[in-house]
Amino acid sequence: MSHKGILVVISGFAGTGKGTVIERLRKQYDNYELSVSATTRSPRPGEQEGVHYFYKTKEEFLHMIDQDELLEHKEYVGNYYGTPRAFVQSRLEEGKNVILEIEPQGAMDIKKKMPDTVMIFLAPPDAVTLRDRLAGRATEDAQKQKERLHRAAEESDMITSYDYIVVNDDLDQTVEEVHQVISAAHFRMGSNLEFVKKLQEEMQMFV
Amino acid sequence: MSHKGILVVISGFAGTGKGTVIERLRKQYDNYELSVSATTRSPRPGEQEGVHYFYKTKEEFLHMIDQDELLEHKEYVGNYYGTPRAFVQSRLEEGKNVILEIEPQGAMDIKKKMPDTVMIFLAPPDAVTLRDRLAGRATEDAQKQKERLHRAAEESDMITSYDYIVVNDDLDQTVEEVHQVISAAHFRMGSNLEFVKKLQEEMQMFV
Repeated sequence: MSHKGILVVISGFAGTGKGTVIERLRKQYDNYELSVSATTRSPRPGEQEGVHYFYKTKEEFLHMIDQDELLEHKEYVGNYYGTPRAFVQSRLEEGKNVILEIEPQGAMDIKKKMPDTVMIFLAPPDAVTLRDRLAGRATEDAQKQKERLHRAAEESDMITSYDYIVVNDDLDQTVEEVHQVISAAHFRMGSNLEFVKKLQEEMQMFV
Repeated sequence: MSHKGILVVISGFAGTGKGTVIERLRKQYDNYELSVSATTRSPRPGEQEGVHYFYKTKEEFLHMIDQDELLEHKEYVGNYYGTPRAFVQSRLEEGKNVILEIEPQGAMDIKKKMPDTVMIFLAPPDAVTLRDRLAGRATEDAQKQKERLHRAAEESDMITSYDYIVVNDDLDQTVEEVHQVISAAHFRMGSNLEFVKKLQEEMQMFV
């Protein structure tokens, strides 16, 4: 059987709890790793190369795009951000499941370049629960919350482009369900064709 | 989220341990049920209608074929055997995962009629292990074993038509892995479109 890791995309509206679910996955199980992005923005105090980001000049970043070294990229307030293909692939080869927390457009770019990616949409139980969770974030003003909800409404068109949907109602259960979805992917036929070929060849001794 | 059950096909060479794995699934978890076949053969002493089989006359059976009431069927030493669609669908509606233990040709017939079926091939770790397991069945003579292995070699062409492959090496682990694959299927996007539609509609309040 294959011991390669699974590439996992987790998307969801702001306030759905993606970050918490991913943190718990990494704490409870030993084979998860977060992807590290490349960026043209400057390191902030305390940030480390290869841990928080891979820091690139604009020229380096554009060269990576040219060479198809990024699985997806975007521009955000004047800086570039992207997912380096080499980092992801080396971790998958080591058997780590690599998690990308990413918005729907980037998610679709990834799926195009890596069709085996397991695409999970983390959903709130309902819209009112989402609004109440965001309202509970004391650090954000009403206008910011309104913008986030508006954006979430727009993103909701993309939900059916994902492979799986998990509703984050009870955190413990959600973490287990997401883990179950990812674990099952190791048994997909397409991930085990080498094993099958070997078995089929061996079976010829009985013909 | 959807509470409908999953239709599961489990195939594998004779001697792979399908029966034992299915028995353990049913014992360890409460939401599995075996499909009950229709047949034209006569009940044996102790067998019960609707438990071991649904007993049909040949005319009734042929009528079921005509009316597309069977998900698959075959003839075997003069009798017909088939999988009644109505039984399977009523159990799925009740939230039971319905398991069909069936050979590859029947499995492909099922998949055609019920595309959401989760198709699992249970494989031995290698060909020699399979031969040794069959040789350990004291009740079968060498000729019978040779025939089973020959048939297994033929069936091995069909492995890649399945969605998932699980290697039965350690029984406890295998049962858990098969359960994981089936459980994950509840979160497939296609099984939860009603929930998604409702959420998308609710989200419009934020536009």
